Amino acid sequence: MELREKTVEILAAIRESSPMVHHITNRVVMNFTANVTLCIGAAPVMAPCIEESPEMVKYAGALLLNIGTLDLPLVESMMAAGKAANEAGIPVIFDPVGAGATALRTRAAEMICRHLKLSIVRGNAGEILSLAGQGGRVRGVDSMDTLGNRIDVISSLASDRGWTVALTGAEDVVTDGERTVVLTNGDPVMGRVTGTGCAATTAVACCAAAWSDPFGAATAGITAMGLAGEKAASLCSGPGTFVPHFLDALANMEPSAVGEGMAFHVPD
Amino acid sequence: MELREKTVEILAAIRESSPMVHHITNRVVMNFTANVTLCIGAAPVMAPCIEESPEMVKYAGALLLNIGTLDLPLVESMMAAGKAANEAGIPVIFDPVGAGATALRTRAAEMICRHLKLSIVRGNAGEILSLAGQGGRVRGVDSMDTLGNRIDVISSLASDRGWTVALTGAEDVVTDGERTVVLTNGDPVMGRVTGTGCAATTAVACCAAAWSDPFGAATAGITAMGLAGEKAASLCSGPGTFVPHFLDALANMEPSAVGEGMAFHVPD
Amino acid sequence: MELREKTVEILAAIRESSPMVHHITNRVVMNFTANVTLCIGAAPVMAPCIEESPEMVKYAGALLLNIGTLDLPLVESMMAAGKAANEAGIPVIFDPVGAGATALRTRAAEMICRHLKLSIVRGNAGEILSLAGQGGRVRGVDSMDTLGNRIDVISSLASDRGWTVALTGAEDVVTDGERTVVLTNGDPVMGRVTGTGCAATTAVACCAAAWSDPFGAATAGITAMGLAGEKAASLCSGPGTFVPHFLDALANMEPSAVGEGMAFHVPD
Repeated sequence: MELREKTVEILAAIRESSPMVHHITNRVVMNFTANVTLCIGAAPVMAPCIEESPEMVKYAGALLLNIGTLDLPLVESMMAAGKAANEAGIPVIFDPVGAGATALRTRAAEMICRHLKLSIVRGNAGEILSLAGQGGRVRGVDSMDTLGNRIDVISSLASDRGWTVALTGAEDVVTDGERTVVLTNGDPVMGRVTGTGCAATTAVACCAAAWSDPFGAATAGITAMGLAGEKAASLCSGPGTFVPHFLDALANMEPSAVGEGMAFHVPD
Repeated sequence: MELREKTVEILAAIRESSPMVHHITNRVVMNFTANVTLCIGAAPVMAPCIEESPEMVKYAGALLLNIGTLDLPLVESMMAAGKAANEAGIPVIFDPVGAGATALRTRAAEMICRHLKLSIVRGNAGEILSLAGQGGRVRGVDSMDTLGNRIDVISSLASDRGWTVALTGAEDVVTDGERTVVLTNGDPVMGRVTGTGCAATTAVACCAAAWSDPFGAATAGITAMGLAGEKAASLCSGPGTFVPHFLDALANMEPSAVGEGMAFHVPD
Repeated sequence: MELREKTVEILAAIRESSPMVHHITNRVVMNFTANVTLCIGAAPVMAPCIEESPEMVKYAGALLLNIGTLDLPLVESMMAAGKAANEAGIPVIFDPVGAGATALRTRAAEMICRHLKLSIVRGNAGEILSLAGQGGRVRGVDSMDTLGNRIDVISSLASDRGWTVALTGAEDVVTDGERTVVLTNGDPVMGRVTGTGCAATTAVACCAAAWSDPFGAATAGITAMGLAGEKAASLCSGPGTFVPHFLDALANMEPSAVGEGMAFHVPD
């Protein structure tokens, strides 16, 4: 199926099935990403503690793990819920916020990557480089400063690990090692709003809950974010008014219009 | 006193006395429900940990317990604060988020219901059914699919336990076992915004902090939510812009206008 | 340098250097204050747990400690991060939310004040009085009911402890014991929005991360808050729509316009 057409179908599938997406996520963005989940057409559940996080997986179409605010019990809860999701065949989507910045985050990210079967990983350049085992170079992300270099790094990472990787930034790249696409929707104001990266991961997880191909799901989620961001940027007067307009744009988004507005190219 | 008139007086009483409402609540909605508390005219305090939660009760006109994001220390803190509130004669309002969905939530809800004297319980159909000891049937809320059935279930529950019960949904029902009212303000967009149920519980708690009759307080709180929701729905362009307009509507609400706009009927 | 001119330079310095501000803060305001940090031109990081909070300090230009929602592990994490900041010569800004209200908060505030070298403390009258060792009188802040009395209390506190103290209320006072200024920007609607006090502390911390003089930083941060608040108050229709307009106003603020709009006087 052609990518544009698939994106339309995935977004329509969320609206039809309204899958539950279980988030074990950071405290800063819980409200915002719960609203992103609802606006895109899915249903959020957030059950952080280990006494119930694996049990809650049974209702979910996808499990999202985000290490933005971390402590040791939360890592254990993520591992337990991730194993339950792996056993149940539910896709696990990982957002390695700050991987490479502190030993705790780097170790937590490594544990999650090594011991869980992940479907999609979404992060920025520094985070993805850290996961690629180049953590010592995180403070200088120079090695990823050209689009070609980024594609090489994440394409290898995706092949080696069996993940779909979504690297977001000024341009977004999604790859599963075989297929690669560069997505160019979005607006710079999104960089001035806390949690837009985390929200992109949520959008991807909602797509993964409604569609079995991770490459398609990651592409559709990132595109929906970018187009809603463009719409909101055209209506807002700054990063504060951006947020409510962005949520409206997601909620009012027609899947067919996303297909038309989707801006991408396949690199050589 | 007639219900419409009483609602006006309760909302005016909050503005006059600005009671403090102590929330031990879920992490997703803390900011939103703190703002709901301020907008309706009360003062929020949120002190989750057991080292201070019972002590903080002494400043409060009502204590709200919400199990939306739960761990064991939080349950213990709720129990300690609830006992302090019971001893001080301060009303305890309970929101059993997700009761019936996991063993932890069901057990926590049962412990709170059994060992604390609750004034008002607000939840959706599945949660209330779980509290009514019909937890095994939570996944099929079919037994509550007609308004008459709902009223029977919650009226018995209210009588047996000595609670006022507020069941919210497309239509809202409030009962204390003797008196029952069906409230019909509100707008469907509220179902697409995270935390509107939790915010209804907050509105009810603010009313209970300013007024001694729980049935009147629950009715006034649910009605204020519904009318503010209608106003915001008429001004917004989706669930994102709904939130700021909703808070404005609560803050700008004239108690007398709530009395006029209140839509309800008493079932046969 | 004249105060008006210095404020312009400080706000411009944040935009130029985009310093990271590490928050260990309360759960209610994490999202809002992260957005305040971004809008003013700095970069937020929030790493609450002790396993990484001291390590995260190395990236930061300032460390903000806010005890609004507290538990014992968070206090320990604050102490560890505060010591790391002291050793690295990074300014520590403290918001003693609720000091004087419960034993836990009072003790935590005392521990932070005694064992850490603080640069700036921002609070309301009751909180500052509690830190001044007049905790028994917190419930009656009568002793601070005139501006002159407030200035006497906080000026002594600043001198004794070596802090810059910012007491915010209807009028704001900033003093380092030698220099004192009364700041009068702002709007009453800010008192009806949760977290505006916490956000003022964030604005102050962003200034402290970009400028070495704490008195100048506190003055600039409080002024930026007040002017953004005035702008948002002129555009909003209540406390709900205030928030997005406030963030826009911070993000769109010209440092030179802040210098022009700054309203202050130096008391006799």
